[in-house]
Amino acid sequence: KDVPKPVADAFSNDPERHPALLVRNSKPFNAETPPSLLTDHFYTPNELFFVRNHLPVPDIKTENHRLTVETIKGKTVDLSVEELKKKYKSYTIGSVIQCAGNRRADMNQYKKVQGLMWEGTAISNAEWTGVRLRDLLADAGIDVFDDKIKHVHFEGADVDPTGTPYGASIPIEKARGDEVIVAYHMNGVDIPRDHGAPLRVIVPGNVGARQVKWLRKIIVSEKESDSHWQQKDYRAFSPAVNIGDELKWNTVPSIQEYPVQCAICSPAPNTKVDRGDETVDISGYAWSGGGRGIIRIEVSVDGGETWNSVEMEQEEKQDQEHMYAWTLFKAEVKIPPGVKEFNIIAKAVDRAYNTQPETASGIWNVRGLIHNAWHRVPIIVKD
Amino acid sequence: KDVPKPVADAFSNDPERHPALLVRNSKPFNAETPPSLLTDHFYTPNELFFVRNHLPVPDIKTENHRLTVETIKGKTVDLSVEELKKKYKSYTIGSVIQCAGNRRADMNQYKKVQGLMWEGTAISNAEWTGVRLRDLLADAGIDVFDDKIKHVHFEGADVDPTGTPYGASIPIEKARGDEVIVAYHMNGVDIPRDHGAPLRVIVPGNVGARQVKWLRKIIVSEKESDSHWQQKDYRAFSPAVNIGDELKWNTVPSIQEYPVQCAICSPAPNTKVDRGDETVDISGYAWSGGGRGIIRIEVSVDGGETWNSVEMEQEEKQDQEHMYAWTLFKAEVKIPPGVKEFNIIAKAVDRAYNTQPETASGIWNVRGLIHNAWHRVPIIVKD
Ligand SMILES: [Mo]
Ligand SMILES: [Mo]
Repeated sequence: KDVPKPVADAFSNDPERHPALLVRNSKPFNAETPPSLLTDHFYTPNELFFVRNHLPVPDIKTENHRLTVETIKGKTVDLSVEELKKKYKSYTIGSVIQCAGNRRADMNQYKKVQGLMWEGTAISNAEWTGVRLRDLLADAGIDVFDDKIKHVHFEGADVDPTGTPYGASIPIEKARGDEVIVAYHMNGVDIPRDHGAPLRVIVPGNVGARQVKWLRKIIVSEKESDSHWQQKDYRAFSPAVNIGDELKWNTVPSIQEYPVQCAICSPAPNTKVDRGDETVDISGYAWSGGGRGIIRIEVSVDGGETWNSVEMEQEEKQDQEHMYAWTLFKAEVKIPPGVKEFNIIAKAVDRAYNTQPETASGIWNVRGLIHNAWHRVPIIVKD
Repeated sequence: KDVPKPVADAFSNDPERHPALLVRNSKPFNAETPPSLLTDHFYTPNELFFVRNHLPVPDIKTENHRLTVETIKGKTVDLSVEELKKKYKSYTIGSVIQCAGNRRADMNQYKKVQGLMWEGTAISNAEWTGVRLRDLLADAGIDVFDDKIKHVHFEGADVDPTGTPYGASIPIEKARGDEVIVAYHMNGVDIPRDHGAPLRVIVPGNVGARQVKWLRKIIVSEKESDSHWQQKDYRAFSPAVNIGDELKWNTVPSIQEYPVQCAICSPAPNTKVDRGDETVDISGYAWSGGGRGIIRIEVSVDGGETWNSVEMEQEEKQDQEHMYAWTLFKAEVKIPPGVKEFNIIAKAVDRAYNTQPETASGIWNVRGLIHNAWHRVPIIVKD
């Protein structure tokens, strides 16, 4: 890691958090939603939304915050949060944020990887309200169809000890889409500090790392962001690259759209069930990047030889070509006869008929990113 | 099948074909490119381009052909091919056409499926020249951002015995894209009869079945095409639906964008190699839908435990976010020590980090569509 680490003190002004969050790292704060609670709500309550911070949490007085937009020539728009809300039309969109490291611990079981050991709930779903990025760019005199513009950069108010802010960028084709907003509300209330107060860019369908929190600067550019998190993190290498090998970051593209993902949240692994119950109740989530809706979720209790489709809960305002919210599922699966233990497996199919690999064997990567193999939950049967 | 079958005579006027094509059905004509020839050319020569016909081949005199565009209100544009060429700007794009049934024979080996037994070369790549569909629609007074327009329908001049033409539709978001063209040239010459002379709509990134040949009618609509091929074919069911089960076609969406695909073309399965040679030369292709470029192709000779990235040949004019042409690969793989036979496995990763499933176990479907599991070629080692 070539980002200077903030001293522990720098985190002393971090906000209070809900005690139910499963803390994976305290400084910077990184925590998952408890899996047993995640599927209780189609929109994850703000206080249970997973938290992925790279740096200390900025403490911004909303009335003092400014958002600037810079063009290639340097001309800027400079707005307060109040002006932003007044000046532009507001849009609300249900959209998932998922950490690129979600399910890393599961990939680590296949073969050791490096990074924060996220289990399977570094993902949450919220309804975001804000203004279209495209409207802001237009107001700054930017032609979003200008061939010279390739990327839109975002800078947060969170800084490392050298004063370098968190940053990321997205391709201009994505930036000008209907769905990309600069949000000020999360589930109907002001965005909480841990989630980017007062402004966060929401890039539906893309990985969390590009959805910059504490947003204070938007810059259109001919090239991708130079930030550490764009150039030397959040890129998934080939399984041929092992721990200790030189990491040639520029040989792999930055993660933007996420592939199709699915996980069971309940029951927990190694839950004991009574054979006499005959069935086990399960619940979980599925989601895919690029607005590709989930068209099917299937469950197997015989290692993938036979499958059953399960009932899905989806957002009614979104269609299969523009599905940025997640899909929740609940099902009753039959306990197979004559076994002392078995795996419940779940997997999903997205609108482009993309599917998930069976195991980590083809997707293992040294940093343990975007693990989306079939999710297996071992169950113990008591007679 | 509820499409009336043309009598054999209706095919007597079909064109001559190259004798090297591997014929899977003669009436209607369906044939693959020989795998040993497919990777010799980045752009597949027209006479070797795979052929997938549903009906007899129309015999159209170009000077008599008319293309019409119909709006919701019925207003039309009506053009000759000559007028179309003169009136609109021309664009050239490298783009793959792949049959949804490509690699069906391979899926059939996992478990019996229904359909034409395509091996792995019902796919080819060409450079297409034509006019933007969007320009044609604009000229017909159609606002491609009109909320009422959901689909653009295409009708071919090929008809079944009742006079019903082949038809398909694509979502308006796709139809208004830069990449969608009404083509009159294939690899720099007039499109041959088998490939849609004189006009074919090219929908880069989508399945072949929507890229209607012998195009004579474009219709904007509030709904998807009612055609047999849109509604009762080219939809992939769950593995839970078996042969003999009722097919509830409206429970699964029509295939549009293709998922990531990869196959080895050479050597052929069960090729005998000498251990003394130490290596085997392989070649193949990879491609993904939606313009998602191939970012990596990997090969394994130990069942997927270890992988090597291979060198890729790609079109220089296309970037990873807009890659509609395919990726070819060539590699020298090491013969593993001490084995009498082994599998060469190849798989690809696309720009959204989508990957392929290891086997057909999770994607098997009764019609054997879009099989994209890891491609395995068994090799026999002689000492
Ligand atoms: Mo992340
Ligand atoms: Mo096809």
